[in-house]
Amino acid sequence: MLRIAVLGVGRIGRMHAENIAQHPRATLAGIYDAHPPAAHSVSELLNVTNFESSEAVFSSAEVDAVLIATSTPTHADYIEMAIAGGKPVLCEKPIDLSLERVNACASKIADSNVPIMLGFVRRFDIGHRGVRKAIEEGKIGDLHQVVITSRDPDIAPDSYIEVSGGIFRDMTIHDFDMARFILGEDITTVSATGSRLVSPALMERCDDYDTVSAVLTTASGKQCIINNSRRAVYGYDQRVEALGSLGMAISENRPMNHTRLYNAGFTDQAAPLLNFFIDRYDTAFAAEIDAFVDSIERGIAPEVGFEDGRQALILAEAAIRSAKESRTVNISEIG
Amino acid sequence: MLRIAVLGVGRIGRMHAENIAQHPRATLAGIYDAHPPAAHSVSELLNVTNFESSEAVFSSAEVDAVLIATSTPTHADYIEMAIAGGKPVLCEKPIDLSLERVNACASKIADSNVPIMLGFVRRFDIGHRGVRKAIEEGKIGDLHQVVITSRDPDIAPDSYIEVSGGIFRDMTIHDFDMARFILGEDITTVSATGSRLVSPALMERCDDYDTVSAVLTTASGKQCIINNSRRAVYGYDQRVEALGSLGMAISENRPMNHTRLYNAGFTDQAAPLLNFFIDRYDTAFAAEIDAFVDSIERGIAPEVGFEDGRQALILAEAAIRSAKESRTVNISEIG
Amino acid sequence: MLRIAVLGVGRIGRMHAENIAQHPRATLAGIYDAHPPAAHSVSELLNVTNFESSEAVFSSAEVDAVLIATSTPTHADYIEMAIAGGKPVLCEKPIDLSLERVNACASKIADSNVPIMLGFVRRFDIGHRGVRKAIEEGKIGDLHQVVITSRDPDIAPDSYIEVSGGIFRDMTIHDFDMARFILGEDITTVSATGSRLVSPALMERCDDYDTVSAVLTTASGKQCIINNSRRAVYGYDQRVEALGSLGMAISENRPMNHTRLYNAGFTDQAAPLLNFFIDRYDTAFAAEIDAFVDSIERGIAPEVGFEDGRQALILAEAAIRSAKESRTVNISEIG
Amino acid sequence: MLRIAVLGVGRIGRMHAENIAQHPRATLAGIYDAHPPAAHSVSELLNVTNFESSEAVFSSAEVDAVLIATSTPTHADYIEMAIAGGKPVLCEKPIDLSLERVNACASKIADSNVPIMLGFVRRFDIGHRGVRKAIEEGKIGDLHQVVITSRDPDIAPDSYIEVSGGIFRDMTIHDFDMARFILGEDITTVSATGSRLVSPALMERCDDYDTVSAVLTTASGKQCIINNSRRAVYGYDQRVEALGSLGMAISENRPMNHTRLYNAGFTDQAAPLLNFFIDRYDTAFAAEIDAFVDSIERGIAPEVGFEDGRQALILAEAAIRSAKESRTVNISEIG
Repeated sequence: MLRIAVLGVGRIGRMHAENIAQHPRATLAGIYDAHPPAAHSVSELLNVTNFESSEAVFSSAEVDAVLIATSTPTHADYIEMAIAGGKPVLCEKPIDLSLERVNACASKIADSNVPIMLGFVRRFDIGHRGVRKAIEEGKIGDLHQVVITSRDPDIAPDSYIEVSGGIFRDMTIHDFDMARFILGEDITTVSATGSRLVSPALMERCDDYDTVSAVLTTASGKQCIINNSRRAVYGYDQRVEALGSLGMAISENRPMNHTRLYNAGFTDQAAPLLNFFIDRYDTAFAAEIDAFVDSIERGIAPEVGFEDGRQALILAEAAIRSAKESRTVNISEIG
Repeated sequence: MLRIAVLGVGRIGRMHAENIAQHPRATLAGIYDAHPPAAHSVSELLNVTNFESSEAVFSSAEVDAVLIATSTPTHADYIEMAIAGGKPVLCEKPIDLSLERVNACASKIADSNVPIMLGFVRRFDIGHRGVRKAIEEGKIGDLHQVVITSRDPDIAPDSYIEVSGGIFRDMTIHDFDMARFILGEDITTVSATGSRLVSPALMERCDDYDTVSAVLTTASGKQCIINNSRRAVYGYDQRVEALGSLGMAISENRPMNHTRLYNAGFTDQAAPLLNFFIDRYDTAFAAEIDAFVDSIERGIAPEVGFEDGRQALILAEAAIRSAKESRTVNISEIG
Repeated sequence: MLRIAVLGVGRIGRMHAENIAQHPRATLAGIYDAHPPAAHSVSELLNVTNFESSEAVFSSAEVDAVLIATSTPTHADYIEMAIAGGKPVLCEKPIDLSLERVNACASKIADSNVPIMLGFVRRFDIGHRGVRKAIEEGKIGDLHQVVITSRDPDIAPDSYIEVSGGIFRDMTIHDFDMARFILGEDITTVSATGSRLVSPALMERCDDYDTVSAVLTTASGKQCIINNSRRAVYGYDQRVEALGSLGMAISENRPMNHTRLYNAGFTDQAAPLLNFFIDRYDTAFAAEIDAFVDSIERGIAPEVGFEDGRQALILAEAAIRSAKESRTVNISEIG
Repeated sequence: MLRIAVLGVGRIGRMHAENIAQHPRATLAGIYDAHPPAAHSVSELLNVTNFESSEAVFSSAEVDAVLIATSTPTHADYIEMAIAGGKPVLCEKPIDLSLERVNACASKIADSNVPIMLGFVRRFDIGHRGVRKAIEEGKIGDLHQVVITSRDPDIAPDSYIEVSGGIFRDMTIHDFDMARFILGEDITTVSATGSRLVSPALMERCDDYDTVSAVLTTASGKQCIINNSRRAVYGYDQRVEALGSLGMAISENRPMNHTRLYNAGFTDQAAPLLNFFIDRYDTAFAAEIDAFVDSIERGIAPEVGFEDGRQALILAEAAIRSAKESRTVNISEIG
């Protein structure tokens, strides 16, 4: 049994802790949270060790691997500490909001072969993977165009938006990674457009956008079109579409259930979409833990690693510049 | 150009007249209606001859074929007159509400080879035909079970229901014909169940039902399940499903358009169903005229003939007896 | 924590054992299986007590409740033993293949108030419950007609079919219970039809059917139409449709994932259906355990009890008689 | 009856001629085609006057209005001639491939009040109109983002592509007009991206693209994302999606029929998409004629006019420049 400790037991960390506890070949080695009351109550509830400090986690002989679900500014430090301690890491995205810090982290851990996995959970969604699989199996031929729709059910609180690093680094970053996953080829250019429509005053204040489009291209001319909104009142809209020379594959949304209603005035009304990312990507989160355990057990590199996190951030930086300067930005300009 | 006259220019007759006028290889030879003002206004509108009597139609040298869309009690007489006059006939269903009268008509016209086509328009629906075609092409293997859902958007006026001959002869008769079309094999038994739920007092008064189920079997054991309701507030519900040894084919409903709505509280809401039989089966009615013209031009028997009308009525009689006597009725008991 | 022991750790029992182990307010108190090697390996794997006998389970002070997933002929005996031992029971359907035995069991446990829950798992499916909820919330008005489609992906091995008690007692029994759940009113008549199309020789030998239809009615005339097949090659087909005076609700099938393919020659092809009942009803099985734990904790009667199991068997007996005698059977004739 | 003459009786012109002939308040006044044999055979077939020259059409007292379906280079001249002759015009898109020529034409006809309608047929599609209607009725609140998917079933012959004026002027122009129709607000910027993936050698030779994306914005920040491909082997893919503050509306594709297939290995396979633009937009073409007749009868401006054609061309010019210069182009730079 692989003993995994969880750092940070907020909403996401706690969900990860439960998934680890339920994994057939892993156990929850304990938790740590900078906020002692939270740490205490979760350790009680899950009946596991409450580590006194992050250092205690990284040096514990009872811990085989760590999952980092703390606040973003701590990620890079914890990754470095984990690698120094020889503990494989599964770290929530993003590595850091600063590309400089990410690059510094990259240098520091360059000589290590302790595995680092990045928590781009959407790669583990069975629907999105189905699109990737259709491509790999040749079912849609050569890939030409990808369309990623990714809209949150509602905008996060102002306090979150203010420190999020902006929509491209915080939200679109998932889609940049998805674009890389589906395209299977390096992205060379980014053209991005941002608007302030959902919460204009807040966006103005933060010099941020709430509605964005981005067009990415690869060296061979493959295109990926991303559209994002901070608010889609009909639910968490998560679709991936791939057009190829022989067909198209689409990963559609997931409704809450399969009941449909027909009444006077309309027909064939589906249940609401799964609205919360933890519900929408429930099996993906479990599959992510499984992939992490699997990569450690088999001694192979995780499917999505540190460099994937860095590349996604580079795309975010390129998008920010593109939206600001109203021009297509070449990836080589960044970093 | 095949010159076709239309007898009866109520709602259905007039629609047929327009379809004939638009057919590339047919013209509207004129109309007749027992109600002179109606006849007058339609003949003016369509700019065609207004025949003075049905006899005038059947003896006219300017008429190559006739379409009978008058009230049910006149159908058998007109068929006999048309055959006597050597005019091919397309007659709206049913031939008559009395099986005795139908059998008498059958005897009278037995020696003629003037083609008679029955207006079971649903056979010409592209969706339902798709199910039949899937079977013929072997795409679902040996046929095992058919499910026909057929529900009207709303119950007809009391005055109509009172003379309709009952739900089995008036409404289910379409499904009996569809069952024969899809099964492609003689039906041997009928088991039917009727309820009074939509308009109980009227049904009580007419000794009729407004909600019925029927299970038909063929000699080889193929089953067909029909469900009917006089009122489905969500629209005109017309589905045909066929299960076979290698798969299933379904002819689904047709919404008014392909716009879908997603709002807070629901997702993926389709437009209402096409609600009126003339809209739902618009292309089927045109295809029916085309098949009629085609069979005359090519000198071949119409795809759906007098005997099909008689067989559907036999199934209706069996269903009536089955519902009354709470037992499975063998077709051989009828007629 | 409610300590639940599992009797019988074949495919279903083991799945239940894992669900109990994962339940936040229950623990797996141990297992028992009449086949020692199976019992041994499962107890090792799940790291729980391997009880030496069923008696040991029913008398253990470490066991608060029992789940019976043994072979059908043992169910009634175990229920009686559990009740005698004061242990709440969750028993897989059916109680017994003999209505006489079920009635005897009913008499024996009549004075007890130890809760018994029957494992009609489909009642806990979120889609089917959505239909029931739509009815309860008045969204489709007065209920008129229910259509239940229930087809297995493939016929079970001959050895299973031979001792199954026949399709009505073994397979349709789930649909009889679903009919009762959705109709919410006592069923008064059954009219059933059986055919031998999937595996004719086996069916002939067992005097059984592989393709059946049944029409049920309630006192007020509500109708429920069930169609079953032992083999639907396209997957495990599980649909429930309810027509009411104000609309319709449908619980649709569940595909394996939400990826759709579009190629030359077709469009909009969904992934295969979830094919195995344990996958199709995965969340339903977990919800069933949850309902069992909940009813014990709160001291309320389980949502689906012994009498529900008896009533479903009565409907099966009525269907068998109806199919044999080609007539509608009144429930009052049975039992 | 409005007497309409058709200039150009190729594939599209002939279809228009037939729609005019079937319109209840219009008649086909005759045809003209620069290719005499084509003109002759169509005039015979439709049994109408074969005008000897375009001049004869524009000066005929038997012609109330004209429909121009000739080759693109003749459009502007014919429009000018029609206006000079006082004949209302319905002209196929584009007005001309040269913005200069379009502007010159605009000047010439500026003083006339003879109505000119542009053949942007998609505006008359019932599904796309449903999206516009949902916006107008407030059903999705304030509009934020539009996504237009428009992919041809297959690339046109080389000879056509070579003189098409490029994908933005020839194909995307429809989507530019659709964007204006749905957005209901002036577009201010265009950012476009082109690739050569379907037929790279041809595209290289023509300095053209076969796969393009474009992002348009309005002054208020509304975004419209267009994706095009010259080849989607699964059929003619025509979708319009609108996201607003209160919901989303989507105009989905139209399959050939409503038959669906379920087999081992897949489920819920729809019929192919309507593959040919004349089939896909059949009712839209008829509705377009109806709108033309209607605007003349009622003396109101056509819903889509000359200026709409000019604006779409301006957007095409902006897209060409954007793709070439890898930057966002402001509409004010053009024209």
